[in-house]
Amino acid sequence: MRLRLTPRDTTFFDLLAASAQHLVTGANLLGEMLGAARPERKEIGKRIADAEHLADDATHEIMRRLNQTFITPFDRDDIYNLASSLDDCMDFMDEAADLIVLYKVDELPTRISDQVQVLQRAAELTAEAMPRLRSMDSLKEYWVEVNRLENQADKSYRKLLAQLFDEVADPILLMKLKEIVEKLEEAADAFEKVANTVETIALKES
Amino acid sequence: MRLRLTPRDTTFFDLLAASAQHLVTGANLLGEMLGAARPERKEIGKRIADAEHLADDATHEIMRRLNQTFITPFDRDDIYNLASSLDDCMDFMDEAADLIVLYKVDELPTRISDQVQVLQRAAELTAEAMPRLRSMDSLKEYWVEVNRLENQADKSYRKLLAQLFDEVADPILLMKLKEIVEKLEEAADAFEKVANTVETIALKES
Amino acid sequence: MRLRLTPRDTTFFDLLAASAQHLVTGANLLGEMLGAARPERKEIGKRIADAEHLADDATHEIMRRLNQTFITPFDRDDIYNLASSLDDCMDFMDEAADLIVLYKVDELPTRISDQVQVLQRAAELTAEAMPRLRSMDSLKEYWVEVNRLENQADKSYRKLLAQLFDEVADPILLMKLKEIVEKLEEAADAFEKVANTVETIALKES
Repeated sequence: MRLRLTPRDTTFFDLLAASAQHLVTGANLLGEMLGAARPERKEIGKRIADAEHLADDATHEIMRRLNQTFITPFDRDDIYNLASSLDDCMDFMDEAADLIVLYKVDELPTRISDQVQVLQRAAELTAEAMPRLRSMDSLKEYWVEVNRLENQADKSYRKLLAQLFDEVADPILLMKLKEIVEKLEEAADAFEKVANTVETIALKES
Repeated sequence: MRLRLTPRDTTFFDLLAASAQHLVTGANLLGEMLGAARPERKEIGKRIADAEHLADDATHEIMRRLNQTFITPFDRDDIYNLASSLDDCMDFMDEAADLIVLYKVDELPTRISDQVQVLQRAAELTAEAMPRLRSMDSLKEYWVEVNRLENQADKSYRKLLAQLFDEVADPILLMKLKEIVEKLEEAADAFEKVANTVETIALKES
Repeated sequence: MRLRLTPRDTTFFDLLAASAQHLVTGANLLGEMLGAARPERKEIGKRIADAEHLADDATHEIMRRLNQTFITPFDRDDIYNLASSLDDCMDFMDEAADLIVLYKVDELPTRISDQVQVLQRAAELTAEAMPRLRSMDSLKEYWVEVNRLENQADKSYRKLLAQLFDEVADPILLMKLKEIVEKLEEAADAFEKVANTVETIALKES
C-alpha cells in the first residue's frame, strides 16, 4: 500500500541528479577508452561497468520510492520515464564500451570520437539540468541544446555509417564497427529522450 | 498547470488525421523510389524526409496539446500511443528510404515492392480511419484489414529474408539488403500497432 | 464504457498463469529443437508457433478484460506490463526457433544450449510464480532467482558472442548465428522484465 501523508518527496531530484552524474563519468571514461591502447581498454571498460552499476542502483532506488510514495513532485509516469531513459543512456554507453573490448578492434574510425564527444557534452548538460528540475529554472536551454546535439550526432552517425560501408572491406570488421557505432547512436537518442521528458514535465508545470 | 474547463478538444482528430496523411505521402514516395534510378532516389529521399518532418511537427503538436489539455476525447495514454505509433510508421519508412540511398544499392530484390505495397495500402487505410475516430464509425473493418495486411507482410518478409541468405553471396550487400528489408518490416509492425491502439480505444468506448 | 461494479476480476491470475504455461512449452520445444536434426526442426518449429499463438490469445484476452474491467486486482499498467512482457518472452523464443529453421544452420554452437536451459528454467519459475500473485506468497525467491539466471545468461551470451567472432570465419554464417544468439538473449531479458514487474507489484502491495 502506498504511504499516505508523505510530503512531496524532494529526494527524487537528488536521485535523478546522482543518476545523471554517473552518465558524466561513463561518457568521459568512454572518451578515455578511445584514446587508450587495447590492453588498457579492458580496465577502463571495468570502470564504465562500475558506473553502470551505480546508475542502476540509483534507478532502482527511484523506482522503489516511486512505487511507495503517494505524492510525487511530478506525474509518476514522467519521473518513471525520466529515470528509465537516464538508465538507457548509461546502458548504451556501457554496451558500446563492452563491444569495443569484446570485439578486440584495434583501429577505431576517428569519427567515433565525434560521437563520444557529443555524448560527453550531453551528459554534462543533463547532469547540470537535473537539479534545476526542483525550481524548473532555465530548463529550455538544456532541452534545446540536447536536441541540437542529437541532430548533429545523427548526421555524423550517418556519415560514419556510409564511410564504413565504403572503406571497410572485411565484412566481419564491418559488422563489429557498425554495431559499436549504432550503440553510440542509441546512447545519443536516449539523451534526447531524457531531454524530451524534461520538456514534457516543464510544459505540464508551466 | 493543465487548462481546466476545456471542451473535448476535437482538434486531436484533425491532428491525427493530418499525421496519417503524411504516411500516405511517405509510403507512395517509397514506392516511387523503388522504381527510380539511383540518381533520382536521392531527390525522392529528400521528399520523404520532408514528409517525415511534417509528421514530426504534427506529433509534437499532439503531444503539446495532450500535456496542456485537461479533458481529452479518449484516455490520454491512448492518444499518446496513437500519435507515437503513427510517428514510428513514418520514421521506419524514412529510415528505409535513407538506407536505400546511403547504401547505394543498385538492384533491389523485387519482393521489396511487395513490402512497400503493403505499407502504401496500410497508410491509406490508416488515413481513412483516423477521421472516423470522431464518430467511432466502422473502425473494425480497418483494424481487421491492417492486421491481415501485417500478417501477409510478415510472411513475405520471412520469404524475402530466406531468399537473401540463399541468393546473395556478397556478405556486405547482404548486410545492406537485410537492414533495408528489416526497416520495412518494422514499418509494417508500426502500422499494426496503430490499428491495435484504435481497437483498444474502440473497446473502451463501446 | 468500462463495466462498473465489477468484482476484483480474479480471472486475470488464471490468464497470466495460462500465458506463462505456454512459455514452458515453448522453451522445452526450443530445447528439443537444438537436439534435433534439420528435417525435424521444421516440425518442432511449427509446434513452437502453435504455443506462440496460444500465448497470443491469452494476451489478447487479458488486454480485452483490462480495457473493459473497472476494478482490477493491481494497477492496470502493471497487469498490462506483465501480460505484454510474458508475450515478449514467447515472441523472442519463437523468433529464435524461426531463424534456426529459416537459416538452415546445421551446426549450432554448444553454448546455445546453455542459453536455452536458462530460458527453460526461467519459464518454469515464471509459470510457478504467476498463480502465487493471487496470495502474493513467496514471490521474492522467484524474482531474485530469475534475476540471477538473467545475469548468468548475459555472461554466457557475451562469451558466446566473442567465441563466434573468434571462431566463425564465414561472415554469412556469423550473421546467422549472431542473430539467433541475440534473440535468445532478448528472450532472457524479457523473462527478467516479467520478474521486475512482479517485484513492482509486490512492492506496491506490501
